[in-house]
Amino acid sequence: MRSFLVIGNYAHTEPFKLNDLPGAGRIDILCRCVAQALFISHGIRNYVEVYLLLLGPPNPPKAIKIVGNEVKRMSPDERNIAGHIRKALKKDANKGWSKVHSGVYIANKNLEELLRELSSKYEIYYLHENGEDLHNIAKSIKNPLFVIGDHYGLTQDQEKVTKSFARKVVRVSHISLLAEQCITIVHYLLDRNFIEIKSKPRNF
Amino acid sequence: MRSFLVIGNYAHTEPFKLNDLPGAGRIDILCRCVAQALFISHGIRNYVEVYLLLLGPPNPPKAIKIVGNEVKRMSPDERNIAGHIRKALKKDANKGWSKVHSGVYIANKNLEELLRELSSKYEIYYLHENGEDLHNIAKSIKNPLFVIGDHYGLTQDQEKVTKSFARKVVRVSHISLLAEQCITIVHYLLDRNFIEIKSKPRNF
Repeated sequence: MRSFLVIGNYAHTEPFKLNDLPGAGRIDILCRCVAQALFISHGIRNYVEVYLLLLGPPNPPKAIKIVGNEVKRMSPDERNIAGHIRKALKKDANKGWSKVHSGVYIANKNLEELLRELSSKYEIYYLHENGEDLHNIAKSIKNPLFVIGDHYGLTQDQEKVTKSFARKVVRVSHISLLAEQCITIVHYLLDRNFIEIKSKPRNF
Repeated sequence: MRSFLVIGNYAHTEPFKLNDLPGAGRIDILCRCVAQALFISHGIRNYVEVYLLLLGPPNPPKAIKIVGNEVKRMSPDERNIAGHIRKALKKDANKGWSKVHSGVYIANKNLEELLRELSSKYEIYYLHENGEDLHNIAKSIKNPLFVIGDHYGLTQDQEKVTKSFARKVVRVSHISLLAEQCITIVHYLLDRNFIEIKSKPRNF
């Protein structure tokens, strides 16, 4: 399994307008991260889970889980993925995961609660440009979850919590890239050591 | 300089609805390619040009050029970039480049005309999954333009024309990726050999 947790510090936590995703606390970033994490040409990586942590107004925290192996009727364009997130935000969220529809779940979990849950399932890596070059250690990585910030990165408190769960801080490039570009490059580096890529056709 | 030419065989060649980019002949793919080619975190790669060749109904061919060093008021979300493409399609296009607004140009050029022009400025590479691994030759690449197909790739005729101008056929992965993912990985591989990345702040 491979997993990504993207933190949207400004991402709105109520249903937003699909015609202005940047105006909804940069929901567009989260959508592109989901697309780049899940999709390959004509297929979905069915061994990938994506977690989004939405911390903007009015009702933070909202955690959304998207499971590659279960998700249906998703396509890689921002508006489609935003529609899935929007639908999730219409549902009441509790401490446990509630199913929104196939492969999409929502919960009221903060970063610490989320990482505590996920650290029993994944090895946590914090993606930050001051970390170790992933290129050099990709072969040793098994069953990872990468924690990634939005356009302003993690707050000091979030960084402290993340580092307390993380096995390592890793970087993908010496330049500061968009969050979704980091995800694409993580996949690329891990794919090079993963001969048989399994994917499923998109399920409509 | 680095450049990308993305061929959209179905991309509509008249102004389309911003609320349905996939329905406009997968304009969403072209938008994601522009975003991943031009943007890094809080900046635009000012040494990059992106060419889009739109070949869908009703008025093909339409070639659009986006110049990183000149472009203004562009952000990486699909809808914003689609707005720039849509605006270009409202303008009359001729054989020469007509300026739409800062950094965005349009012309009536087919693939052969476009590659003939660009081959005087760039070394042409055709990105295809049967090509040579770019990882192994990235260091030797100078001043490249990468030709990339949409979700159905190039037609046989387009492939023949492209190969007649191309220095090499190269691939980035052993799995079939989305067009924009290929662009991100091309940048990644070339960046590793390009110590000082120059970018400009986004210009609003």
